[in-house]
Amino acid sequence: MTSRSAIQRPLIAVTMGDPAGVGPEITAKALANSKIRAVCRAVVVGNLRTMERAAGAVGVNVAAADPDALDREIDEIQVHDPWGRDLSEAPVGTVDARSGAAAAEAVIEATKLALDGRVAAIVTAPINKAAINAAGYHYAGHTELLADLTDSPGARMLLVAPGLRVIHNSTHVSLREAIDRVTRENVRHVIGLLDETLRMMAIERPRLAVCGLNPHAGEGGLFGHEDDAFIRPAIQDARNDGLDVTGPEPGDTVFNRARNGAFDGVVAMYHDQGHVAVKVAGFFDGINVSVGLPIIRTSVDHGTAFDIAGQGIARADSMEMAIETAATMAVSTGRAAAPETA
Amino acid sequence: MTSRSAIQRPLIAVTMGDPAGVGPEITAKALANSKIRAVCRAVVVGNLRTMERAAGAVGVNVAAADPDALDREIDEIQVHDPWGRDLSEAPVGTVDARSGAAAAEAVIEATKLALDGRVAAIVTAPINKAAINAAGYHYAGHTELLADLTDSPGARMLLVAPGLRVIHNSTHVSLREAIDRVTRENVRHVIGLLDETLRMMAIERPRLAVCGLNPHAGEGGLFGHEDDAFIRPAIQDARNDGLDVTGPEPGDTVFNRARNGAFDGVVAMYHDQGHVAVKVAGFFDGINVSVGLPIIRTSVDHGTAFDIAGQGIARADSMEMAIETAATMAVSTGRAAAPETA
Repeated sequence: MTSRSAIQRPLIAVTMGDPAGVGPEITAKALANSKIRAVCRAVVVGNLRTMERAAGAVGVNVAAADPDALDREIDEIQVHDPWGRDLSEAPVGTVDARSGAAAAEAVIEATKLALDGRVAAIVTAPINKAAINAAGYHYAGHTELLADLTDSPGARMLLVAPGLRVIHNSTHVSLREAIDRVTRENVRHVIGLLDETLRMMAIERPRLAVCGLNPHAGEGGLFGHEDDAFIRPAIQDARNDGLDVTGPEPGDTVFNRARNGAFDGVVAMYHDQGHVAVKVAGFFDGINVSVGLPIIRTSVDHGTAFDIAGQGIARADSMEMAIETAATMAVSTGRAAAPETA
Repeated sequence: MTSRSAIQRPLIAVTMGDPAGVGPEITAKALANSKIRAVCRAVVVGNLRTMERAAGAVGVNVAAADPDALDREIDEIQVHDPWGRDLSEAPVGTVDARSGAAAAEAVIEATKLALDGRVAAIVTAPINKAAINAAGYHYAGHTELLADLTDSPGARMLLVAPGLRVIHNSTHVSLREAIDRVTRENVRHVIGLLDETLRMMAIERPRLAVCGLNPHAGEGGLFGHEDDAFIRPAIQDARNDGLDVTGPEPGDTVFNRARNGAFDGVVAMYHDQGHVAVKVAGFFDGINVSVGLPIIRTSVDHGTAFDIAGQGIARADSMEMAIETAATMAVSTGRAAAPETA
């Protein structure tokens, strides 16, 4: 990895998330951390008053960003708030259309800043599906909203926990459908997506592992034929194209081998195979990295946590890891937008 | 839990495992630990010379057990060796029929002791499938051998990691077959097995969670119908029978909720769903508990680790947890065989 000189501290937009959730407080906590400020400059996109309240609770100050100079360095946490909404009536810890609207607007604005090259990457705090839908934004979540905003229907997620990076061959389909989607072409495609994304994460020559579909990767055909019929040829195709790929590997042991350093990333065959590993390994600080978008975007992997919002007790580990990863990706792809010396 | 008076330290047979693997050294390490000796008396079943070598490497002594008084208390680690084989020519770290024969004989003898009520439980160190087969014992592993020895074809495993106990609706079948086995009857049956086994582990009123089959437990039918059609009615049947059962729960979050204390045990729907969680959560000290055998039996969840065998560096965490769990189960079921006062 390149050493980070001052000029390589990329400018990152962090969306505050649903103002009724833990997003504002974990954003404030993360940006108050000198370790985070050392690797990037940041602008929060969201409601100024909400961020003032959240930052006050963790003992830091915020200031309105200058829309024409988002990259300026100030001591406070700068907040880009082109709306000036009054959200004081929208209660913390509750689904509310006003909160949902503010959360969705922040994502839309941050995406625009990234598409325009005014920020190098975006990091998103959690939004609430019910709240954005109540506000008229009919999306299942960030992934669908971002895919729409950037015209990227093939977008998907890389899940990251400490020592573990996992992409899926399929996610939100039934397990029967997930089995049907294990084809040579699909598996080869997702191996390529993983390789590309890890290179963006500054891993020069990613060592990839591919999970088997069946127990013990089929145990030589005893427990199903798909591992040998579809996954093994896909891996061979990827190897023929010069990628460093191992598998099909038994799903129950490959993730610990990756955590022990044997692999940089793992292709899981279906939702729970990879999500179980990442959530159990991560516990507190997993993150998501968008794959297949024209912009760099990372995200915390937890929800709005309405039950503890506003108490200042939410952990910022995931947000910090999301910001650090976005910074690494921005630097390694030369997107350190709005250089500090400008 | 009952407090453990002297009379409640059950007598446990620990099989040494494959003598060429890490079994002998982790057995010696665990039995040299005063914490382990405080909760049980133990007799190692295996080769005396092998155990002398392994115990020497960790600085403890062994002595031949008196076959007519296996329950006597001695300062050394006592070894029950009715064979007196010379294994000095069987190399450490290698598959060898002589090692395989000794390992299988130890399991057979320990099982006999348990069936005869001469020990309260057995704990098994890892054996090597190739080695026992080379010696003429044609089994895939302990589970099949024990099922045969005790005439228990329905035997299965409970996997235990710190804070997590998991049983499976199916294990060594293809994922397509695993889906077919998600029936109301099968799921109700395995819920009952989990409840029974946790009660044996001294959990008075087990709180159980059942995984969904599909992502997000089907998301209300969007991602598959099996969760609502089969799993939900099975859970209702179990509730009607007085069990404390929750679900179907999304597979990717239920395991952390269990580790956080919300549930005492989890029913996974297929091999990788549960095994991924347990292996990622356990890393070093997962264990297996036999379910549906007429004897109490626990086991380490790792293999013979031929690559590090004989170096004294193998961790004994899993063996210690296996012995502690067997002791708890023996006490809670009143099987503290051969009482100390006898």
